[in-house]
Amino acid sequence: MLVVAALGGNALLRRGEPLTAEAQRANVKIAADSLAEIVRAGHRLVITHGNGPQVGLLALQGAAYKPEEAYPLDVLGAETEGMIGYIIEQELENALEHDRPVATLLTQVLVDKDDPAFKKPTKFVGPVYEKEEAETKAEAAGWHIARDGDKWRRVVPSPRPLEIPDVRVLQLLLEQDVVVICAGGGGIPILRRDDGSMIGVEAVIDKDAASALLARQLGADALLLLTDVDAIYRDFGKDTATPIRELSLDEARDLDLPAGSMGPKMAAAGNFAESGGVSGIGRLEDALAILERRAGTSVV
Amino acid sequence: MLVVAALGGNALLRRGEPLTAEAQRANVKIAADSLAEIVRAGHRLVITHGNGPQVGLLALQGAAYKPEEAYPLDVLGAETEGMIGYIIEQELENALEHDRPVATLLTQVLVDKDDPAFKKPTKFVGPVYEKEEAETKAEAAGWHIARDGDKWRRVVPSPRPLEIPDVRVLQLLLEQDVVVICAGGGGIPILRRDDGSMIGVEAVIDKDAASALLARQLGADALLLLTDVDAIYRDFGKDTATPIRELSLDEARDLDLPAGSMGPKMAAAGNFAESGGVSGIGRLEDALAILERRAGTSVV
Repeated sequence: MLVVAALGGNALLRRGEPLTAEAQRANVKIAADSLAEIVRAGHRLVITHGNGPQVGLLALQGAAYKPEEAYPLDVLGAETEGMIGYIIEQELENALEHDRPVATLLTQVLVDKDDPAFKKPTKFVGPVYEKEEAETKAEAAGWHIARDGDKWRRVVPSPRPLEIPDVRVLQLLLEQDVVVICAGGGGIPILRRDDGSMIGVEAVIDKDAASALLARQLGADALLLLTDVDAIYRDFGKDTATPIRELSLDEARDLDLPAGSMGPKMAAAGNFAESGGVSGIGRLEDALAILERRAGTSVV
Repeated sequence: MLVVAALGGNALLRRGEPLTAEAQRANVKIAADSLAEIVRAGHRLVITHGNGPQVGLLALQGAAYKPEEAYPLDVLGAETEGMIGYIIEQELENALEHDRPVATLLTQVLVDKDDPAFKKPTKFVGPVYEKEEAETKAEAAGWHIARDGDKWRRVVPSPRPLEIPDVRVLQLLLEQDVVVICAGGGGIPILRRDDGSMIGVEAVIDKDAASALLARQLGADALLLLTDVDAIYRDFGKDTATPIRELSLDEARDLDLPAGSMGPKMAAAGNFAESGGVSGIGRLEDALAILERRAGTSVV
């Protein structure tokens, strides 16, 4: 099977952990060991990943040095594709004992310049703050902020991904059994200008949405949305909570799912289901078991 | 022909220019227009680039935000492969009017853990400073510093590149006529541990050395070392200065070349010549003319 596996930014950098390279590497190692099982089971694999905490961190680093020379979000997104992609590639190559080629490809993703998201930022980036601290920072740096759980964070525009032009290159590599890491952070958002040329834009695409688009464009058999929860639950947060093994999109609509984390995943699963694909949602550690429907929640 | 073209970090970000994304994009656009001519002339093309100014900048940004969470040089190098690779890819795709696939690949490069460079840092990174300012910063941050022209800069270890494991993936792409951007910043330096696994190391590989290795491993026909000088000169700096169109390695040894910038280029040309390849040295704007020996200096 051709499998697209999306690693949650939070799974790579757990909430409350320092945003260090070491912390990321330790979490990536867990992901790499899990994903290596999919490769060893004989499947072709494309790996995508989030970058919310990281892209926000790089923006803070730039602003702390010289705010007037800070880099735009498309360039910072490209930096996170380098940073996170490298660590995933290295740990996955180690997990596979260097007997399978792994390649990390920068990935641009086309968005619409009239996407309403540019007027209404919703994508969380960077660290969490107490409300007052977030408000102070927002005023100083011109951020939009929003509540994330019991904390506050910067939010940036998150336009819908329309097309991944690089998909033909990905296909070439997959045909040759190369494991590919791509579309990190949902891809680098770009616009088509009137003259046909492309230019980056200040935004962060949702990585689940980009992964669903990628899975469709590649004709993948399965989309795995890997995170830090083991399944979707009926009666989530109550005593009667039970994990759901298989969920139809109609059933999903009737569930009261936590919007922040599960909303984009269900939307991605819904998008991929339209082309007949099955999505699995569950823990990073259970990748192969989710693919084989022994763990997580399959959205059909 | 299969051509490896190495873009100097200084050519992408000219001395004295602010280290902004805009300044880099403007210079990259010049490079992209020039490199597009090579592709349109029917050659296969691999592009590498330096990252000295950029990797030093990212280190400064990280230290300005939270020094205790600063990223190691291998991770910063990976970030610059994302940042610079993205801008080159986008501008080259625009220059080629999107009718040829261009792919940017993260590239790890193996070095020797016992390389003497780890004890003697020589590679310039980051901005230039007056001597006193450099000394103050060196003391505060634990940098090594060295004189670069009439200014001072941070220096880091620059071990010799031994092997580029990703070369088989590059070959797959080149066989399919994909233009490849790779080995940015000389590649991400990695070591082989005793158990056979790989791990990044704090260093910055010279991009000319890595490009020569890459050209050899790929069996390239030509290596272009593109910079901001139009040729190697006899009697450089004197009234009698004359550009040299063709130079043998023996003749090169007798020339009094400026060590800082031309030293690594002549070493790279020498290395590539050992496998029978011809290197061209000259201006970014003259890429095709240098390849066709109408400009620059050919080292044979």
